[in-house]
Amino acid sequence: MQKQAVTIAPSIMCADLCNLEKSVKEIEQAGLEVLHIDVIDGSFSPSMPLGIDTIKQLRQITNMDFDVHIMANDNEFFIQEMIKIGVEQITFHLETSVHIDRYINLIKKSDTKVGVAINPATPLSTLEYVLPQCDTVLLMLINPGFATDKNEKQIPYAIEKVKDLKQLIQDKGFDTKIEVDGRVSIETIEELVNAGADILVAGSTSLFIKGNSLSENKQNIDKKISAGLN
Amino acid sequence: MQKQAVTIAPSIMCADLCNLEKSVKEIEQAGLEVLHIDVIDGSFSPSMPLGIDTIKQLRQITNMDFDVHIMANDNEFFIQEMIKIGVEQITFHLETSVHIDRYINLIKKSDTKVGVAINPATPLSTLEYVLPQCDTVLLMLINPGFATDKNEKQIPYAIEKVKDLKQLIQDKGFDTKIEVDGRVSIETIEELVNAGADILVAGSTSLFIKGNSLSENKQNIDKKISAGLN
Amino acid sequence: MQKQAVTIAPSIMCADLCNLEKSVKEIEQAGLEVLHIDVIDGSFSPSMPLGIDTIKQLRQITNMDFDVHIMANDNEFFIQEMIKIGVEQITFHLETSVHIDRYINLIKKSDTKVGVAINPATPLSTLEYVLPQCDTVLLMLINPGFATDKNEKQIPYAIEKVKDLKQLIQDKGFDTKIEVDGRVSIETIEELVNAGADILVAGSTSLFIKGNSLSENKQNIDKKISAGLN
Amino acid sequence: MQKQAVTIAPSIMCADLCNLEKSVKEIEQAGLEVLHIDVIDGSFSPSMPLGIDTIKQLRQITNMDFDVHIMANDNEFFIQEMIKIGVEQITFHLETSVHIDRYINLIKKSDTKVGVAINPATPLSTLEYVLPQCDTVLLMLINPGFATDKNEKQIPYAIEKVKDLKQLIQDKGFDTKIEVDGRVSIETIEELVNAGADILVAGSTSLFIKGNSLSENKQNIDKKISAGLN
Amino acid sequence: MQKQAVTIAPSIMCADLCNLEKSVKEIEQAGLEVLHIDVIDGSFSPSMPLGIDTIKQLRQITNMDFDVHIMANDNEFFIQEMIKIGVEQITFHLETSVHIDRYINLIKKSDTKVGVAINPATPLSTLEYVLPQCDTVLLMLINPGFATDKNEKQIPYAIEKVKDLKQLIQDKGFDTKIEVDGRVSIETIEELVNAGADILVAGSTSLFIKGNSLSENKQNIDKKISAGLN
Amino acid sequence: MQKQAVTIAPSIMCADLCNLEKSVKEIEQAGLEVLHIDVIDGSFSPSMPLGIDTIKQLRQITNMDFDVHIMANDNEFFIQEMIKIGVEQITFHLETSVHIDRYINLIKKSDTKVGVAINPATPLSTLEYVLPQCDTVLLMLINPGFATDKNEKQIPYAIEKVKDLKQLIQDKGFDTKIEVDGRVSIETIEELVNAGADILVAGSTSLFIKGNSLSENKQNIDKKISAGLN
Repeated sequence: MQKQAVTIAPSIMCADLCNLEKSVKEIEQAGLEVLHIDVIDGSFSPSMPLGIDTIKQLRQITNMDFDVHIMANDNEFFIQEMIKIGVEQITFHLETSVHIDRYINLIKKSDTKVGVAINPATPLSTLEYVLPQCDTVLLMLINPGFATDKNEKQIPYAIEKVKDLKQLIQDKGFDTKIEVDGRVSIETIEELVNAGADILVAGSTSLFIKGNSLSENKQNIDKKISAGLN
Repeated sequence: MQKQAVTIAPSIMCADLCNLEKSVKEIEQAGLEVLHIDVIDGSFSPSMPLGIDTIKQLRQITNMDFDVHIMANDNEFFIQEMIKIGVEQITFHLETSVHIDRYINLIKKSDTKVGVAINPATPLSTLEYVLPQCDTVLLMLINPGFATDKNEKQIPYAIEKVKDLKQLIQDKGFDTKIEVDGRVSIETIEELVNAGADILVAGSTSLFIKGNSLSENKQNIDKKISAGLN
Repeated sequence: MQKQAVTIAPSIMCADLCNLEKSVKEIEQAGLEVLHIDVIDGSFSPSMPLGIDTIKQLRQITNMDFDVHIMANDNEFFIQEMIKIGVEQITFHLETSVHIDRYINLIKKSDTKVGVAINPATPLSTLEYVLPQCDTVLLMLINPGFATDKNEKQIPYAIEKVKDLKQLIQDKGFDTKIEVDGRVSIETIEELVNAGADILVAGSTSLFIKGNSLSENKQNIDKKISAGLN
Repeated sequence: MQKQAVTIAPSIMCADLCNLEKSVKEIEQAGLEVLHIDVIDGSFSPSMPLGIDTIKQLRQITNMDFDVHIMANDNEFFIQEMIKIGVEQITFHLETSVHIDRYINLIKKSDTKVGVAINPATPLSTLEYVLPQCDTVLLMLINPGFATDKNEKQIPYAIEKVKDLKQLIQDKGFDTKIEVDGRVSIETIEELVNAGADILVAGSTSLFIKGNSLSENKQNIDKKISAGLN
Repeated sequence: MQKQAVTIAPSIMCADLCNLEKSVKEIEQAGLEVLHIDVIDGSFSPSMPLGIDTIKQLRQITNMDFDVHIMANDNEFFIQEMIKIGVEQITFHLETSVHIDRYINLIKKSDTKVGVAINPATPLSTLEYVLPQCDTVLLMLINPGFATDKNEKQIPYAIEKVKDLKQLIQDKGFDTKIEVDGRVSIETIEELVNAGADILVAGSTSLFIKGNSLSENKQNIDKKISAGLN
Repeated sequence: MQKQAVTIAPSIMCADLCNLEKSVKEIEQAGLEVLHIDVIDGSFSPSMPLGIDTIKQLRQITNMDFDVHIMANDNEFFIQEMIKIGVEQITFHLETSVHIDRYINLIKKSDTKVGVAINPATPLSTLEYVLPQCDTVLLMLINPGFATDKNEKQIPYAIEKVKDLKQLIQDKGFDTKIEVDGRVSIETIEELVNAGADILVAGSTSLFIKGNSLSENKQNIDKKISAGLN
């Protein structure tokens, strides 16, 4: 039986924000196909990494897949903006959504992949009727929007939660992908992949480790992924 | 008697957001000293041009004065973030502020110039006890955060409001600057300056008119300013 | 010099809500041309007299002018809904609006008359730059949405506020109409008209006084208006 | 063993809102006993079908059972208003309620039946301690308040969710009713009843299908119900 | 002509909160008749000095006048609670009130004196129609709820604002009292009284200066008041 | 095998709030070691028993363990304030928390015990990933903040919910404590302890029953605890 491929999704937050074109080209040239873009409103959590207009201009200069992760109180506004820009996947948080089914449909109608994200403490039971409607479930492994706080560590129950979700997906016979976000490091990738992670949001502790080139880091990640898949 | 100088504050929104370093260098080389940076939260109005992290990285590569205009519901958060980054002026909206005097003090304590912004329909009476505490009053001449809506025109009472404010400042003997923001175009600059505007937020209808170089546009603006001052 | 006409705007709240078609026809037949429609969201104040769908169906059966008074926290939503329905005037409250100028423009672009409403305690200084953009200023003479509380009386400064506004409008040379809303009774109409009121929201203490026919009540109101105009 | 009866609850939204008395009498005469009344605040979702005052007046002219479905952010206010009017069942959404147990008690103390409603994506696990306190659980089969959007379809997991809830109720030995709301059509009624639905909110795709009389439509529904019960 | 008396209103915040009965008795014995009680909700500003239940119990043990200053987002709730307890004056902030006239009436109907409070930067124009309805206007001379921040100084325009308000009250012929709150110190009392202050909220820089007895401090304040009145 | 000890946590709400020092000393002398302190913001529920400043001063005069129960919308603010004061346990509600894992970490980093509280209707499934991170789960057995409403009774499913939680904790092999709050009376203590309650919030129906001394009440409680443990 063939193993499922694992996707590395580099976080744009780790790019050179004053030279995004150059930075994104380098990421492309390192053989990466997905760009993970965090959209935070400063209210859901105290960060606002990137503006909408920057994403709009970025759309003009690269064909990479845009994997957008909305962390906001007003999901409908940001979903609509991302649909207008034209991105490949839109993920929003269940914790701030009253009309979850509606948002999923809004995204699907625009032929965009849909993901739902859940915070560390959010139980999997929230996914009961959502899971079959989604392409991806994004598990936050740190508290969203607090990544710049260096004291913010990956949750100790990360592996357990990935395994639980993998089990749930398999039990139901779905093919939903599991995306993991938050301190996804060289040290943890093997175990995360082994537990069932399909998409790795890669940041400063994996693809952007200083001292190495993007390619070197990517090779190290690939090795860990292979190990995790076996 | 010598006329007061008028400052051109190019809006970063008109820069190339994927090549900000290059774009800002060009602005600097055209002889401009102030960069106007809009920070919008998507909730005060439906835009989010730029992220905080982008401003943070921008701070590392240029010594231009950062003239930050916060359009947000949670002024305190964004003021604190801008103070941490180190900018030269922070302007916030009175309409979303309950503790105006406190925000002014927060900004002053960090040795940053302080501005207050008011929407088109907001009366000048709101400035009664605020005016002497401020370096700048920013008058919105379009509705803030709706600039990308091409149907959004400059308010018909723009010149009148600038004149009213100028009169108020002179009557009280203050030296508060008047900043104007919103469709400040080649066509209106002379009249705005003549009415009393000290700082011009310059965008797509002045400094960034397509077909001309930055320098050519700047020269045209300078002529209009001179005409307005005489 | 001819006196300006005064408009009676019967409040739909006093109609028979289970037989609206019949009730509105009677109002029409009594020679009235304007229907005052309160839209309250239950949150701005604890009432919700009428639904949007009712207004929509009402639009199909009468050509009376719809004079809509929005009392809501989310002005933009209700303004858009009223524009879709097609009404003749839309009035919204300044106290709940951050983007006043924008709402005025939204309404004007749809070729609808625009009014702004202010609560009893709201000062006229809020109208400084709004007045010339409006067709009507609605002065609340009771607290909006509390009309069903029988202890809620007309404010003692009603006449004074109408006079102040009339003076302001005349001083500026505008022709903005003054609409008065709240316990506009047979007893107060003469004085209100004399003070400068142009549009009278007519309810249970004038047009719908029990025991009289609509026509009888209208005649009594007309007499008071005439007296007030002389 | 006798099958449990299934109730048809015609949605007042499909009545003639300008001739409610006539319309409700017709519904009564067609042999229906329950009137389903949606109360939406325009904020929970972008609709406001009916006002509170209309319901108040309606109460005076019919003895039908009022089955009120509150879709609002401020449940306590609307629950209190409905209690004052005197209705037979009050259903509120779990998604907007922090003090669920308290609202249930408020309703029960007024000798009114109590229902809780859940959105399509809301899991049944939210009902853990609520189920035995309720008379009815209302399952939204479309997104609440978006019914007027014709592109809004019944959720594909409608039958599954009804079956899951039925199973849960039976496993616990409760006799809670299941109410289904949202595109409950002639085509789906048999299957919904078979899955366990006890109360059918009937609208434009069943009781109010154009071209047929209310009685004809009711007969068609009754046939589908019978088929579903067998 | 006899000078108007000036009232000292000791802030309960400076009492011994673990021995309130003893502390309040001492204040009474020093000849003070009014107790200033701050009610803050933690959201209007980041403090919550005292609970409602404490005020309720305090009411049982002293006949001092309770001068309650509400600093909260939900004025109606706290006003109702204070009315239930039975206090002598209730003051609320204009900045957080949409239905100002209604709150004033709520308070008046319970035979309680009514005050309105305004933040340092709030203009006096907000008082236009409020002034004649009130017994007291409370001017915040520091930012409300930030008193525990020792860096928070009295606003430089304190005296000017008191004078402006006094002038306004005299011009209109009203007898509204002016209450001043925020670093009302031995050093500033004379000037504040001279400018027109009628009620002094007395805290750690006047009545509760350490090292002196309450009586000694009161005598010092009385001297300053006398000086200010002459 | 030795039975686990059960802790009595007297509610400070039942103390003499005007003579707290005396009251707390009496509680200490009766042999109690934990003080249960409710912090409510008036918005989560309509109560505000105690202020932050009172707790701060209380901290200076007793070494009892402070078991703080936050019932507020802005958990982060109140958690930070309690950490500054220095308390032994901080419990916050899951229903108002989006960043639950983050709050747990904030509390843990300050070497304070952490509890999570859930309302009566909140399901245990919300605890899935939270349980192993906590020292205590507080089950509300009445609706929080409505305790002063004498009609508010203990929920009928109190014992069942305690048993369910106890089972869950045992199944997972954790040692999380169960705290019960709300009409924990002499009549119910035996059964609650038998079901698994570890900490009893003791108020007017147990430790503070009038007519008895604290010691007498404590002895009665101790007997019930013993009975419950056997």
